[in-house]
Amino acid sequence: MPRIAYLGPPGTFTDQATRALTADFDAELVPLETVSQALDAVREETVMAAGVPVENSVEGSVSATLDALTSGEPLIAVGETVLPIRFDVLVRRGTGLDEISTVSSHPHAIAQVRDWLADNIPGAKVLVDSSTAAAVAAVDAGEVDAAVAAPVAVEHHGDLEVLAESIADVTDAVTRFLFVRRPGTLPDPTGADRTSISVVAHDEVGALTELLTELSLRGINLSRIESRPTKDRLGKYRFFLDIDGHVSDARVGDALTGLRRRCGEVRFLGSYPKADRSPVVIRPMASEQAFQASQEWLEQIRAGRIA
Amino acid sequence: MPRIAYLGPPGTFTDQATRALTADFDAELVPLETVSQALDAVREETVMAAGVPVENSVEGSVSATLDALTSGEPLIAVGETVLPIRFDVLVRRGTGLDEISTVSSHPHAIAQVRDWLADNIPGAKVLVDSSTAAAVAAVDAGEVDAAVAAPVAVEHHGDLEVLAESIADVTDAVTRFLFVRRPGTLPDPTGADRTSISVVAHDEVGALTELLTELSLRGINLSRIESRPTKDRLGKYRFFLDIDGHVSDARVGDALTGLRRRCGEVRFLGSYPKADRSPVVIRPMASEQAFQASQEWLEQIRAGRIA
Repeated sequence: MPRIAYLGPPGTFTDQATRALTADFDAELVPLETVSQALDAVREETVMAAGVPVENSVEGSVSATLDALTSGEPLIAVGETVLPIRFDVLVRRGTGLDEISTVSSHPHAIAQVRDWLADNIPGAKVLVDSSTAAAVAAVDAGEVDAAVAAPVAVEHHGDLEVLAESIADVTDAVTRFLFVRRPGTLPDPTGADRTSISVVAHDEVGALTELLTELSLRGINLSRIESRPTKDRLGKYRFFLDIDGHVSDARVGDALTGLRRRCGEVRFLGSYPKADRSPVVIRPMASEQAFQASQEWLEQIRAGRIA
Repeated sequence: MPRIAYLGPPGTFTDQATRALTADFDAELVPLETVSQALDAVREETVMAAGVPVENSVEGSVSATLDALTSGEPLIAVGETVLPIRFDVLVRRGTGLDEISTVSSHPHAIAQVRDWLADNIPGAKVLVDSSTAAAVAAVDAGEVDAAVAAPVAVEHHGDLEVLAESIADVTDAVTRFLFVRRPGTLPDPTGADRTSISVVAHDEVGALTELLTELSLRGINLSRIESRPTKDRLGKYRFFLDIDGHVSDARVGDALTGLRRRCGEVRFLGSYPKADRSPVVIRPMASEQAFQASQEWLEQIRAGRIA
């Protein structure tokens, strides 16, 4: 049975997401303490793959994941899933709102329930923990009075109950998770794929514009762009791009070769089916057929057969 | 001996240029009355090739050539030459400036000597003829008093003499000529080549910008752009582009496939050594090596061997 790492402990959203990402096969899930540890376990081949959060619709990118993906040996994403993020307040059975003097959670979770905390338990001291699940365990252990966590967390703790449901300031928040493994055969294209890459552009005027134009000229939709410091020096950034399409698509491959020629560093971070399975819209000039026809035309021109 | 058409009659700049373009082999030069006739003779295979003027440094493009190149069966340019254009005033021996009451030439030539005519023979009536050589013949026949023509024209007419030399308003004017034949094996790349194309862009916002970006993104220098009405309807234009490089160069071929996918009509009008033999400057990201390396990189990515 393949071992699959995830950002633990059990009972987190990542646990839930990794179960969804491995629904098709039997897997032994291995909770690890940080994203870095989970990805390094893949690199060191102690696990086959890992489930990690990459982006939250309210909080934005998960920096730890972006940084861990690009430091160390290459890894690629072969799947993604999107989970609705619902935050509940978990307490020991019988605890009332007015008895909460301390509340704990992961910083991302706390950021998403600030208003509720201020409105409902304004006097409570807010503590941060390494995960929502760890905060729940701390409630169970009697160390804090309440935890903001995933509904699923209560399953692991029989003595706890949900005191308040869906307390996020913004409802409908979702988090996107990637299923990451070492390079190898890529997932087949499905017509509804996403490709993730990171690039370090040369530090010169217009570099980013030219980089984005490599995509737009080929009719490629950019669904996300994020910059992170490269840590070499301030002012030098690594851009994380999510684009519609699969690297085996002619237009995507062609754009990637353009980026590769232009940029100091290009990393392919995977091509995988989009969680929502929405088909990629392709302009006629960017279709497989258009690429093939234009290539054949060029070969005829070069051979002197047509003009 | 191959027959080579040119825009006649003998004694014109095009005659001189076509001699330069055929200097490497024995050819029978066939003067024809119009550029259209010269190019159609190539299409109809009554001649092997034709020498035609394409651009003058003062007057701009030769519209008749651009239009004739793109109407009818495809033709390609396989060579170019650039001639300094010097205009002299030719008269019958013994004629003085004050005896000139009529002066004739080709409209392009007249346009380039306006100031001299106004300053030196302001009272003379200016007539237009089909070529500078025809104007000279008219002087020889006693039909007009003076002709503005190439110095070479006097060689064909023993009774004429040069009354004034180098009368162009702008000195150092040059005209570029193309050597045009039916599609076939292309000239080998020399590292100092030019490629001519014509494209009809789709009539939509940004179409021309995107078309030019296909070139600039690949580090291709555009040395000339000209628009001509397509004659279908007003507002729909055909663009004539001269770019640095040979169609066999990776960056040029790649750009052409981009134009082909994007534009309603793309015509390849030839790749040929530049007359001045100045080497094409290639940015590192646009080199043959960069194109090959990026392609190999993509193949490795697609095969799942690297990321």
